[in-house]
Amino acid sequence: MGWQRQPHGATVQKALEDACAAILKETIVVHAAGRTDAGVHGLGMVAHLDVARVMTPFALMEAINAGLIDVPVAVIACETVAADFHARFACLARHYEYRIVNRRAPLTLGAGREWRIKKALDAEAMHDAAQILVGHHDFTTFRSVHCQSANPVKTLDRLDVTRTGNAITIRASARSFLHHQVRSMVGCLSLVGIGRWSAGDLREALEARDRTRLGLNAPPDGLYFVRADYP
Amino acid sequence: MGWQRQPHGATVQKALEDACAAILKETIVVHAAGRTDAGVHGLGMVAHLDVARVMTPFALMEAINAGLIDVPVAVIACETVAADFHARFACLARHYEYRIVNRRAPLTLGAGREWRIKKALDAEAMHDAAQILVGHHDFTTFRSVHCQSANPVKTLDRLDVTRTGNAITIRASARSFLHHQVRSMVGCLSLVGIGRWSAGDLREALEARDRTRLGLNAPPDGLYFVRADYP
Repeated sequence: MGWQRQPHGATVQKALEDACAAILKETIVVHAAGRTDAGVHGLGMVAHLDVARVMTPFALMEAINAGLIDVPVAVIACETVAADFHARFACLARHYEYRIVNRRAPLTLGAGREWRIKKALDAEAMHDAAQILVGHHDFTTFRSVHCQSANPVKTLDRLDVTRTGNAITIRASARSFLHHQVRSMVGCLSLVGIGRWSAGDLREALEARDRTRLGLNAPPDGLYFVRADYP
Repeated sequence: MGWQRQPHGATVQKALEDACAAILKETIVVHAAGRTDAGVHGLGMVAHLDVARVMTPFALMEAINAGLIDVPVAVIACETVAADFHARFACLARHYEYRIVNRRAPLTLGAGREWRIKKALDAEAMHDAAQILVGHHDFTTFRSVHCQSANPVKTLDRLDVTRTGNAITIRASARSFLHHQVRSMVGCLSLVGIGRWSAGDLREALEARDRTRLGLNAPPDGLYFVRADYP
C-alpha cells in the first residue's frame, strides 16, 4: 500500500520500522526522501532512522534484510550520517523514472511494472511538449486533490522523454514534487504522444491551474523512485 | 513449467496451442526456436505454426493475445512466412542473456528474474575465462544428463561478461546450445568470479568432457532467451 504507514495494510514504512524495532528493541520511526504511492516502485529510496543501540551499519543492514525476508523490500546500502541529517528535509533533488511500453501485446514480465500504451506514440513530440513543464510553475493542474503540500509552485529541473525500441522512458528531476505530479505529467504527455493533445493544449492545461483540466493520470505501475541527492 | 507441452501442468507451448486451436478450430502444433526450461524467461522467442484458415497475421496475433489474457505469455509480432520455414531448423543463431545481481541485499523487483550473488564478483576475470569456452568444443561437462542432442560438440560464437554497477550480464550466442549449457557455463563463471576457480580450472573442466566436473549450474531465474536469427 505504498510507503507511508497506514492504520491497516502492508506498507514499506511499516515493514522497515517493524524489522528495525525487532532488532533494536526500541520504537523506530523511518523517514524517507519521498512517500511513494501504492503500486509505485522504489529502486533507490533514501531513508534515515535514529538508533540508540551501537552497531555497525553493515550489521544493521544485514539484520534488517533478514527481518524483511518475506516482503519485497530490501536495504541495499547503509551508512552512519551526521546527527542532523534528515532524508526528507536535506534532500536536494529527487529523480523519478516512468516506463511506458508502446505495443499491442499485453505485458508479461512487465505486468505491474510498466504502462502499456497500444496506440503509436510520438516520443519526440512528447519530449518537445515536456519542455513546456520544465521550470518554475504553479502545478495545480498536475496535483492530486489529496496533496498536502502548502504550495503548488515547484521548480521542475528535468523532464526528458526517450525511446529505445518500444520502450519509452520519461525521466523527471526536481527538488520536490507534488502528490501525483509525475503521473499527471506523464498522463498528459501520453495524450500528446498519441496526437490527441497538441503542445498548446498542454500549455493551456498548465496555465489553467485547475485540476479538472488534467487530461489523464498515468497508472502507478510504471513509476520508479530512482535516486535522491544530498549535499 | 517451461516451453514444452507436458502431460500435466501449464507450459508456454500448451497456452499458445490452446489459444490458437480455439481461434482456428483445428489442432495446432507450435514449433519454437528453443525450448526454455521452467523458470527461464523468453523476451524474443520465435515460433511458427501452420494454419488452414485464412486471416491476417495482425488479426491472428490480436486473437491469440486475447486468448492468453490469463497467462504471462504474449505474441509481440506475427507475420506470414514461406511454407517451408521452420522456427527450429531454419534458425541460424540463438542469443541468450543471463542476469546476475552482485549485492548483499535479497532481490525485490528482481526476484525470480535475476540471480543474486552475495560475494564480490570479478567480472573482468569472468569475461577473460569465458573466452576459453568460445569456439568449437565438446561441451559434455556443460550438458544436462537429460540432454537429447545427438552430439555434444557445439560452436559457441560469443560469451561476453559485462558489469554495470552491481548488474552483471552474460551474453551467449551460438547456432544451438545443449540442454542447460548456458546455465552450466554461467555457474562455472560465477566460481571464477568469486575466485574459487581459476581460468585453468575452467579449461580443465571443459577438457574433461565429464558432467561430474561441472562446478555449478546457475538457477533458471536469470536466464532470458532474447533473439533468434534466420536467413
